Amino acid sequence: MKQNIYDNPDFFKEYMDLRESGITYNDFIEQPAIKSAISTLKDKTILDLGCGAGKFAKYCVDNGASKVIGVDISRNMIEQAKKENENEKIEYICTPIEDLELQNQKFDLIISSLAVHYIKNYTNLIQKVRNLLSKNGEFIFSTEHPIVTARIEMDNWLRDSNGEKLHWALDNYQEEGKREHNWYVDGVIVYHRTISTLINTLLDNGFILEKVIEPQSIPSGLEQMPKLVNEKRRPSFIVIKSRGAS
Amino acid sequence: MKQNIYDNPDFFKEYMDLRESGITYNDFIEQPAIKSAISTLKDKTILDLGCGAGKFAKYCVDNGASKVIGVDISRNMIEQAKKENENEKIEYICTPIEDLELQNQKFDLIISSLAVHYIKNYTNLIQKVRNLLSKNGEFIFSTEHPIVTARIEMDNWLRDSNGEKLHWALDNYQEEGKREHNWYVDGVIVYHRTISTLINTLLDNGFILEKVIEPQSIPSGLEQMPKLVNEKRRPSFIVIKSRGAS
Repeated sequence: MKQNIYDNPDFFKEYMDLRESGITYNDFIEQPAIKSAISTLKDKTILDLGCGAGKFAKYCVDNGASKVIGVDISRNMIEQAKKENENEKIEYICTPIEDLELQNQKFDLIISSLAVHYIKNYTNLIQKVRNLLSKNGEFIFSTEHPIVTARIEMDNWLRDSNGEKLHWALDNYQEEGKREHNWYVDGVIVYHRTISTLINTLLDNGFILEKVIEPQSIPSGLEQMPKLVNEKRRPSFIVIKSRGAS
Repeated sequence: MKQNIYDNPDFFKEYMDLRESGITYNDFIEQPAIKSAISTLKDKTILDLGCGAGKFAKYCVDNGASKVIGVDISRNMIEQAKKENENEKIEYICTPIEDLELQNQKFDLIISSLAVHYIKNYTNLIQKVRNLLSKNGEFIFSTEHPIVTARIEMDNWLRDSNGEKLHWALDNYQEEGKREHNWYVDGVIVYHRTISTLINTLLDNGFILEKVIEPQSIPSGLEQMPKLVNEKRRPSFIVIKSRGAS
């Protein structure tokens, strides 16, 4: 069964409180990086894989996109999206990304924001994206950085006897697969993949690599969340921009 | 001044003893990865940046290369190369890679094996390589993995009170630049660069990325150097294969 932590009520409440604060890693690190990587939204058809509550879908429409399809596994999220970010140019579909079927549709831009690490079969995902991409279409995704997901034992900070953070622990890098950790609730599962797997699977399936971003916080993030200075020490995310080879 | 540790007599003696043993990270990890990435050597003209004692140059000729130029900063290394790996199809040039000038010459394949991390200005290097590459030529290089070079304090293993290796320490990832460590002699300098810098500088200067390899040991290495099992836990090297965009 596909993991659907966002429909766990405890998780969902915590997550929505966090998201509504506007003071998150997404707001200050990941979304600015994703947005900076997009060539243009104007008149583009867009597929957002793991759209959550539709904030990015709405951003696309506000910036000239002609049509957006947002896909998410969570009923909670899709309901929220329909409440908060409804628009005639946006369609929301509640389905696991793995099960998505869109016959005869192609998109100019496919985005996936911090969802790829939840998906078990990365190759299948990449092939599905390739089939849904227009000629010269862009595929941009963010995921947890492999240097974050590598170690099986997940408390990655090492501290001295005073509790000061010393450095991060790295291990198990080549052992791809399941990692279980606590994020509001126990047992949240992400899949660790190496940098080479993330990139080569694209190159082997008809994509051209355009850019790799290991984002740091934007300046306002450092003011509002001082701990984001640690992103200089170890990036949490990686953003990969690619294009369908013609 | 460019660093030339290989002309330090203490370093050179230790290094040559190691190299002659045939039991090294290069033999079991890095060279197999580089060689696996090469499309073909047959009838190719090859430039080897940081050729050392010419073993790889000789390998190229033995496998059908039509011409090899090997470049190294170290007189010791070039003398050794001329003794051990002379061949009418190989020319050795003693110069820092940064100062290399080859007017009106183009190469089908440019290789650089564990030399890029010694070079301060990576962008200049990449532009130089691009200018020396034939149409559709390949550029393949290996370098210390950014997850190895990142931490400024270089003793990267963390041990428990019994001296057992626990994990690696990671820190300072986004602070690119000089790292000083001990490798036979004190003060060996390498330059840390992020994954995104390594890749984007290629993409921004007329290269297409073809493959990223984070190599592990070949099976015979695990028999002869049991510690190479640790490469599964943290890869020492990264190999990047690219092609000149036409």
